[in-house]
Amino acid sequence: MTMITLLTDFGTRDGYVGVMRGVIWGIAPEVRVADLSHEIGAQNVLEAALTLGRSFHFFPAGTIHLAVIDPGVGTSRRPIAAAIGPYYFVGPDNGLFTPMLERAEAINWAVKVVKLDQPRYWLPEVSKSFHGRDIFAPVAAHLAAGVPLESLGTLIDDYVRLRIPRPVKTGQGWHSQVIQVDHFGNLATNLEKDMLLSQSVDIWINSQRISRLVQAYGDAKAGELVAMFDSANHLSICVVNSSAAELLKASAGDAVEVIYRKKTGQL
Amino acid sequence: MTMITLLTDFGTRDGYVGVMRGVIWGIAPEVRVADLSHEIGAQNVLEAALTLGRSFHFFPAGTIHLAVIDPGVGTSRRPIAAAIGPYYFVGPDNGLFTPMLERAEAINWAVKVVKLDQPRYWLPEVSKSFHGRDIFAPVAAHLAAGVPLESLGTLIDDYVRLRIPRPVKTGQGWHSQVIQVDHFGNLATNLEKDMLLSQSVDIWINSQRISRLVQAYGDAKAGELVAMFDSANHLSICVVNSSAAELLKASAGDAVEVIYRKKTGQL
Amino acid sequence: MTMITLLTDFGTRDGYVGVMRGVIWGIAPEVRVADLSHEIGAQNVLEAALTLGRSFHFFPAGTIHLAVIDPGVGTSRRPIAAAIGPYYFVGPDNGLFTPMLERAEAINWAVKVVKLDQPRYWLPEVSKSFHGRDIFAPVAAHLAAGVPLESLGTLIDDYVRLRIPRPVKTGQGWHSQVIQVDHFGNLATNLEKDMLLSQSVDIWINSQRISRLVQAYGDAKAGELVAMFDSANHLSICVVNSSAAELLKASAGDAVEVIYRKKTGQL
Repeated sequence: MTMITLLTDFGTRDGYVGVMRGVIWGIAPEVRVADLSHEIGAQNVLEAALTLGRSFHFFPAGTIHLAVIDPGVGTSRRPIAAAIGPYYFVGPDNGLFTPMLERAEAINWAVKVVKLDQPRYWLPEVSKSFHGRDIFAPVAAHLAAGVPLESLGTLIDDYVRLRIPRPVKTGQGWHSQVIQVDHFGNLATNLEKDMLLSQSVDIWINSQRISRLVQAYGDAKAGELVAMFDSANHLSICVVNSSAAELLKASAGDAVEVIYRKKTGQL
Repeated sequence: MTMITLLTDFGTRDGYVGVMRGVIWGIAPEVRVADLSHEIGAQNVLEAALTLGRSFHFFPAGTIHLAVIDPGVGTSRRPIAAAIGPYYFVGPDNGLFTPMLERAEAINWAVKVVKLDQPRYWLPEVSKSFHGRDIFAPVAAHLAAGVPLESLGTLIDDYVRLRIPRPVKTGQGWHSQVIQVDHFGNLATNLEKDMLLSQSVDIWINSQRISRLVQAYGDAKAGELVAMFDSANHLSICVVNSSAAELLKASAGDAVEVIYRKKTGQL
Repeated sequence: MTMITLLTDFGTRDGYVGVMRGVIWGIAPEVRVADLSHEIGAQNVLEAALTLGRSFHFFPAGTIHLAVIDPGVGTSRRPIAAAIGPYYFVGPDNGLFTPMLERAEAINWAVKVVKLDQPRYWLPEVSKSFHGRDIFAPVAAHLAAGVPLESLGTLIDDYVRLRIPRPVKTGQGWHSQVIQVDHFGNLATNLEKDMLLSQSVDIWINSQRISRLVQAYGDAKAGELVAMFDSANHLSICVVNSSAAELLKASAGDAVEVIYRKKTGQL
């Protein structure tokens, strides 16, 4: 029983996502379809890549992740499908799958990418502006129905890679940045737990210092500004039961300085 | 394996849509259910009809489209179900299904409409304000489970038709209008590609002229105001990677004049 | 064929809900999953409890309702699962399931609650901030796959109860309050139809009197401010085809006085 996930910047008002489900179920009626998000910022490939990067591995092996954030639709940008470790990915060749490719390199997963060039696996008519419906949904459905990746297109290895912002070591700690503002206003940075030599740190964002790193929201009082490691093990800045994004007027891309505290007596 | 789609103006906050799924799965546990949209403007029957009209045919034959935009709920307006070509429709008799009826006339599809009057296919208690839960969801589920349309009600042919705004020929081209503002701010008009004798046109909307008709977003620069044919083959006004609706302060119903350009030398 | 419903305050942008579906389907691939709402106000346990209370019984017997509104995540608050009559519930022990417990007492349903303490039914790694993914989704999936409730944890009877606001009898009628502002701006109160001795009442909210109690929206004109009994049989204040919440600047918690009208001649 295969699963397909959907990740787009389409919103949910116009019926575009529903139509993709219709196309999928017309080809592979048994497949389970889960929405990952349809509220990615319009044309924000990086946001989509990061969302997929922190989510894809919680799905069963064999899951097909279909992502359509596609500012180049209708141009010469290539449609692709990929097998990365035990997962499949389908979407435009614009860097969307970079976090998974990086993970594959880190843990030695096999990677295979094909340029989609077999129109017999697409809808009969292909529009210039909705390849999610006309190319990507049918290709994902055919994959789910058992068509091998190699039959869907031609192997390539010059697929587009995105520059994912990485934290940079400084003399005193790390220079990192906000990579996600979530629904609760929590600010996730790109600094991961195991990068820190010590958790005795001061954290600076938008001229505000945060000195308290807690284990859980409940360790602080409602309204308190704290840092903690989030459910993806990233350093995150939060206001308990409220929005750090609002309090700090912060957004994705904002700089976050993390500075190791000197030991007492070293002053 | 039948499918049911859901189209409402209920939003997704109150649990109303989830409850409809519960009612459906209680009757037809195997049916697939896809959301088409729940963000139709409140009581906007025309918007819902147009959304369904550009979407319904991408679903597999046999799909049951359940639409509940129902300003007349609890009054004498009739609940209906229809077989139109290979698709089924369930909802209030207020014109929601007009685009499909027009399509049926154009391509000679068979049409059968029944007034729902068999309470044994409804929930035992029927409220005055939520027929989506009490009448339409159970009827759609029974259809999916194999109950014939004729068993659900009495054949009628005086069902309500909506006036769908149509473009009008002028001496110089077409007088059309915006019929959809999508999530990206693209403005779809009711003028279809094959209505145009020539694609050498000037397009006027809100005192602004658009002279560039492109094939794909990528043919223009980010921020450029252009026209193109959208994925439903309608003339659409777009700002590449931005919102034409915002730029032009345009909304559904706004007039769009399309004027054939005179050949050079005809001045 | 079991069903799981999902109710959270996560929103739908970050992929958190999609990930819960992935975890569920990894354990119980055949289960149906329906979204009840993901737009509960952040940390608003009461709103979630009321939403579940008016919805849970429209799902088939055996349905597992998974609710994650969890301000105490990562603290000592207990994770629980419950069998209440023919339904199951999984979530944090913070009072979310109170309306169902009250119903159970009223109609003599059996109630069994366990504190979840068997990590073999959880994800291998449990974060401090996302028990929806790490504990509750896997537990619900194991329930769906046939694991008995008693195997998931230890029976308790000191689970948390929420104070649900109840209407209070006055000399002249009822003192009630708004408990739901729905997508249409309708204001549902906590006063139920069968509590009223007479439907000849004046209703006061925010210094405005409503004297007209209608059976259906269609009994009044568009724009008219009226009262009616909603689809959960609660007294509700509505503006036909518009928003009572906007007109009256009302929100959840606002007082609603219901006063029986004196018979003519009693003045």
